[in-house]
Amino acid sequence: MSCLTDMVVVTYLIESAGDPEALAYKIAHDQSTGTFVPLAGETPELKARVSARVVDIRHLSPVGIPSFPQEAGAREYRRIEADIAYPVAAVGPDLAAIMTITMGGVFSIRGFSGIRIRDIALPQSFRNAYAGPQFGTSGTRMLTGVEGRPVIGTIIKPALGLRPHETADLVRDLVDAGVDFIKDDEKLMSPAYSPLEERVKAVMPVILDHEQKTGRKVMYAFGISATDPDVMMRNHDIVANAGGNAAVINIQSVGFGGMAFLRKRSRLVLHAHRNGWDILTRHPGLGMDFKVYCKFWRLLGVDQMQINGIRAKYWEPDESFVQAFSDCTTPIFAPSDICMPVVCSGQWGGQAPETWKRTGKTLDLLYLCGGGIVSHPDGPAAGVRAVRQAWDAAAREIPLAVHANTHSELRHALETFGQLDLA
Amino acid sequence: MSCLTDMVVVTYLIESAGDPEALAYKIAHDQSTGTFVPLAGETPELKARVSARVVDIRHLSPVGIPSFPQEAGAREYRRIEADIAYPVAAVGPDLAAIMTITMGGVFSIRGFSGIRIRDIALPQSFRNAYAGPQFGTSGTRMLTGVEGRPVIGTIIKPALGLRPHETADLVRDLVDAGVDFIKDDEKLMSPAYSPLEERVKAVMPVILDHEQKTGRKVMYAFGISATDPDVMMRNHDIVANAGGNAAVINIQSVGFGGMAFLRKRSRLVLHAHRNGWDILTRHPGLGMDFKVYCKFWRLLGVDQMQINGIRAKYWEPDESFVQAFSDCTTPIFAPSDICMPVVCSGQWGGQAPETWKRTGKTLDLLYLCGGGIVSHPDGPAAGVRAVRQAWDAAAREIPLAVHANTHSELRHALETFGQLDLA
Repeated sequence: MSCLTDMVVVTYLIESAGDPEALAYKIAHDQSTGTFVPLAGETPELKARVSARVVDIRHLSPVGIPSFPQEAGAREYRRIEADIAYPVAAVGPDLAAIMTITMGGVFSIRGFSGIRIRDIALPQSFRNAYAGPQFGTSGTRMLTGVEGRPVIGTIIKPALGLRPHETADLVRDLVDAGVDFIKDDEKLMSPAYSPLEERVKAVMPVILDHEQKTGRKVMYAFGISATDPDVMMRNHDIVANAGGNAAVINIQSVGFGGMAFLRKRSRLVLHAHRNGWDILTRHPGLGMDFKVYCKFWRLLGVDQMQINGIRAKYWEPDESFVQAFSDCTTPIFAPSDICMPVVCSGQWGGQAPETWKRTGKTLDLLYLCGGGIVSHPDGPAAGVRAVRQAWDAAAREIPLAVHANTHSELRHALETFGQLDLA
Repeated sequence: MSCLTDMVVVTYLIESAGDPEALAYKIAHDQSTGTFVPLAGETPELKARVSARVVDIRHLSPVGIPSFPQEAGAREYRRIEADIAYPVAAVGPDLAAIMTITMGGVFSIRGFSGIRIRDIALPQSFRNAYAGPQFGTSGTRMLTGVEGRPVIGTIIKPALGLRPHETADLVRDLVDAGVDFIKDDEKLMSPAYSPLEERVKAVMPVILDHEQKTGRKVMYAFGISATDPDVMMRNHDIVANAGGNAAVINIQSVGFGGMAFLRKRSRLVLHAHRNGWDILTRHPGLGMDFKVYCKFWRLLGVDQMQINGIRAKYWEPDESFVQAFSDCTTPIFAPSDICMPVVCSGQWGGQAPETWKRTGKTLDLLYLCGGGIVSHPDGPAAGVRAVRQAWDAAAREIPLAVHANTHSELRHALETFGQLDLA
């Protein structure tokens, strides 16, 4: 493999009624030197230096239904996984270039009945090309003062419509309830009824008052995303200058450019929302695996990455969530490029034992509960206690029902949400 | 419809084995006020102000095969088109916000067997929110001095591997051949063997010499895309300061943020490559129509948009290309927001008559030929003449075979490429 030391290796799932291997070679050809006229200057050396090449092919079981609808039916569609190596010399250590060359035109090639990017392996030349997460898990723990358990957070609801003073009223209840982290819904940025500046002015005094009283600063992530990076940076400064320490970034909407611009200048923990990622990943034969997507955004500087959770309210199956958790926490080059997984969607603590068991028995996560905290029958403070109790039981591998015998908040949570969650 | 004057209306294709209408209402709910707890401050007025609502539903024919694979099979999957209106008051006139709210989380909702964004209608409040194209068709014509026919261009091949002096040698042949426009392959940005700065230094003197001799300045679009907007802007300045007037932007790789940052500062014609767009659009039951995508990028400032062409070498069917051409050239708010369609992929002039007939009998396009010019049997100058002759015949509605009787370059092109193209 020494010949691959300065190669970007991309793994494609290729599906075709024809010859998927030929399509793998076509990708390698089209996405590097691809041309239809032989050129005078095209020496074998030059070609070898910049050509992509197929380095491995693995045959998978064929499928009966094509991923892209096909006019002419076939009895079966063959599937392979192909590893294609692209020389960094031909690309440069630039993620936008990698995206363009290894993925950009690939999905347009004729003959596929399906095509999905499964993985990408980056060589050492990318190690220092991007800053990566500035805070990650350790920074989040330091800023929130939470050790020995997950950081427990919640999301302001309703998603849209609250005025700044209404948001601040909710925040007051939530910080009093003992949450470690609060965030704007990702859909809330800076609409006329709640301009970011007004919201920061209303919310930050509540956070700072609570810090002064208790010594604990709740991390509040404000929605600062904007199309224009200059506007996003101005939003960043509004939050940072008011003493805030985190921001929600809709990474898919601001794009690589918005994120790269922000990361270079950021003083905030960047909490990423994968808005639109599902377009790329929900069909298992098309698009790309989260693993690939996650590597790009981690290198670009995401500190906290929202994924789903066990028994999420969205479409994602549990095994896909478990894989996503691993995708966030497996080093690319070094542990410093890990981002903190944000487990959410329909969480209330009841999923803590299964999350613990299936994600490597770690407490290094941000656990976001919406209704699980605010709709607890004894109020949000009891909700927070119930979630902590659930995680404490999970980490000690005590069944929740047993732990609930001596912990009333957990017992009431089980009674209220247990049925819903198992429904 | 007066109630929709300050609404963003998004049209969704919804497919489900269950009740697609219920899913339309679920989108409207989840993507605006969506919450699972009734809140004290949630007055009906507030809700009305920020709630999205379903304003029209059209029933389509059901399909037998689901767009997303389903574990439990069903006999048929119902399809509707639903128009959902989002108040700008709840969103703000920001494209990243629109993308997040109307598309971001939508694809994650359970119960779909398919979901695709078909259209988006933006209200007048967006009219001046974005700069739109700076040059467009009229600017391209002014800078190239081409009137009364399509602007004819070509792409440097091979895509990767040529050193700057080799690129310059090819450029010399191509400007001598009479092309109006040349571009870097979108996969070429700034690799080690051809750093942008060196390439500009090698190519621009050829362009400027030719201008001095002939009075005609060939437009050369250099690949300036980079992940970091500051780097992209430095690349922009290298091109502009050397007398260049155009750049290739891989819009999908730089994202809204990269494009917005560049457009505010740009002195160049921005030629967009939709690298990765196919991931979003190839499956007809998933992702989004080009129409939607195109509106976003036009508002963000794309001057020239690469689409495919009739009988393209890629997967896209002709009717989809024809629609894309219309998507580029239909005003959103005003004719100034039109971008110039770039027709390419396997073009050589033989497709001119059909392109003419099916795209509104217009000559306002950039027509890119690769092999059609450089592989012409009598050389590239004959190739350019053949393409001009084909368009001249097309616009006068003279059959190519007739026109070829008196135009030898076109005749040789027909003999060489006619079989290939029809194969």
